[in-house]
Amino acid sequence: MKQFVVIGLGRFGSSIARTLYNLGYDVLGIDNNEEIIQALADSITHAVQADATDENTLKALGVRNFDVGIVSIGQDIQASILVTLILKELGIKFVVAKAQSELHGKVLYKIGADRVVFPERDMGVRVAHNLVSSNILDYIELSPDFSIVEIAAIPEWFEKSLRELDMRVKHGLNVMAIKRNEEVIVSPKADDIILEGDILVVVGQNKDIEKLEKHV
Amino acid sequence: MKQFVVIGLGRFGSSIARTLYNLGYDVLGIDNNEEIIQALADSITHAVQADATDENTLKALGVRNFDVGIVSIGQDIQASILVTLILKELGIKFVVAKAQSELHGKVLYKIGADRVVFPERDMGVRVAHNLVSSNILDYIELSPDFSIVEIAAIPEWFEKSLRELDMRVKHGLNVMAIKRNEEVIVSPKADDIILEGDILVVVGQNKDIEKLEKHV
Ligand SMILES: Nc1ncnc2c1ncn2[C@@H]1O[C@H](COP(=O)(O)OP(=O)(O)OP(=O)(O)O)[C@@H](O)[C@H]1O
Ligand SMILES: Nc1ncnc2c1ncn2[C@@H]1O[C@H](COP(=O)(O)OP(=O)(O)OP(=O)(O)O)[C@@H](O)[C@H]1O
Ligand SMILES: [Ca+2]
Ligand SMILES: [Ca+2]
Ligand SMILES: [Ca+2]
Ligand SMILES: [Ca+2]
Repeated sequence: MKQFVVIGLGRFGSSIARTLYNLGYDVLGIDNNEEIIQALADSITHAVQADATDENTLKALGVRNFDVGIVSIGQDIQASILVTLILKELGIKFVVAKAQSELHGKVLYKIGADRVVFPERDMGVRVAHNLVSSNILDYIELSPDFSIVEIAAIPEWFEKSLRELDMRVKHGLNVMAIKRNEEVIVSPKADDIILEGDILVVVGQNKDIEKLEKHV
Repeated sequence: MKQFVVIGLGRFGSSIARTLYNLGYDVLGIDNNEEIIQALADSITHAVQADATDENTLKALGVRNFDVGIVSIGQDIQASILVTLILKELGIKFVVAKAQSELHGKVLYKIGADRVVFPERDMGVRVAHNLVSSNILDYIELSPDFSIVEIAAIPEWFEKSLRELDMRVKHGLNVMAIKRNEEVIVSPKADDIILEGDILVVVGQNKDIEKLEKHV
């Protein structure tokens, strides 16, 4: 089983650390903020308060034995770069680092990061696309031509069956699932009725989805 | 054409603002940091330096005429709440606010936010799933229990039909689509054969997806 060390437990780092731990993995979290360490102590395997730019501290914590390192230090770009460098020098195979800007990202790759992520930028792009049509709640681009979207049902669909709506013929779209409160109806049947508050998970060609976006 | 006002132009807010502007929309950006305003001035319609917690300033800027408001103030939770409240009071139809924590999110909904987003948390969940298995390519959380994932086919699936793999019975999962090069096979049939390089789009309960993630 892979072991993960997460350095910098802000919102992004702590979310990664919790998720990995909940998936059943060993997670060592390091942050120099005592309050953050205390808040996370029961949610991951080990939470340690330390300045991660101190190589000897990382050695003493046995960081070299971890398979994957995640550097999610934010504002302090110098610390983010230094810690990434140390993790690679300690021999960690796969190091993921969070970047604040394109330039920061380039530097992280240069010094050996195996993957650089831009969580705020990427989520901003996603949310912007979702906002252009307020009924589009989430999307995955499957290919340049196809996407999956979550669409909030519009009043003209309420109390109609999927057969009556006939999205496949009318819009070229397939309803893969219906979200209703906390439940998800997978592969709904032609007889299933759309209710107010339903969210439809639909797959189709982007051109057809864009037409629907303008309609909803 | 919808008009957008983005308040707080950190990494998340500036990414939304730039993306909307590039999609062809009018975007007013407001931040109290002069440097940030200067850096964005040429990338959006208008960039204004102002303290957004001052209702009169927002009125003077004509903020009430915008269709969508995005509040992406970070650390200063009080400012984020106050600005969200002012935007709703000014009559903006759809207000999206970024939350730092569950509690912050609940407060934002209570005071009228139409949508609350957790960009760092959500991206953390996404990246964690990606790290556990490099076969998991993308991820939408449909509900706390259900998700859609894109999984790169593993060799033991190659040249087998969906009937032979029988994911529904063996793993509790439904294959909604298969990506093959630039094509997408929607609602594949039981006889469809998985080929090397295929990507399966699968929907199911998180507990079943997690089991599969450990397997692939
Ligand atoms: N040298 C260091 N050693 C250990 N932890 C550090 C160090 N420098 C910063 N951190 C921690 O990294 C975490 C993330 O940093 P910061 O809050 O600046 O980033 P951010 O990008 O705003 O975070 P997020 O958006 O994920 O909440 C903080 O909890 C901070 O205490
Ligand atoms: N009262 C205010 N009026 C206008 N802008 C504000 C106000 N308070 C904060 N901001 C701006 O909001 C932006 C985002 O805030 P901050 O950097 O604290 O959040 P963050 O969550 O770390 O951002 P991100 O992760 O998106 O980079 C900053 O550029 C800040 O100048
Ligand atoms: Ca952030
Ligand atoms: Ca994708
Ligand atoms: Ca920050
Ligand atoms: Ca979603």
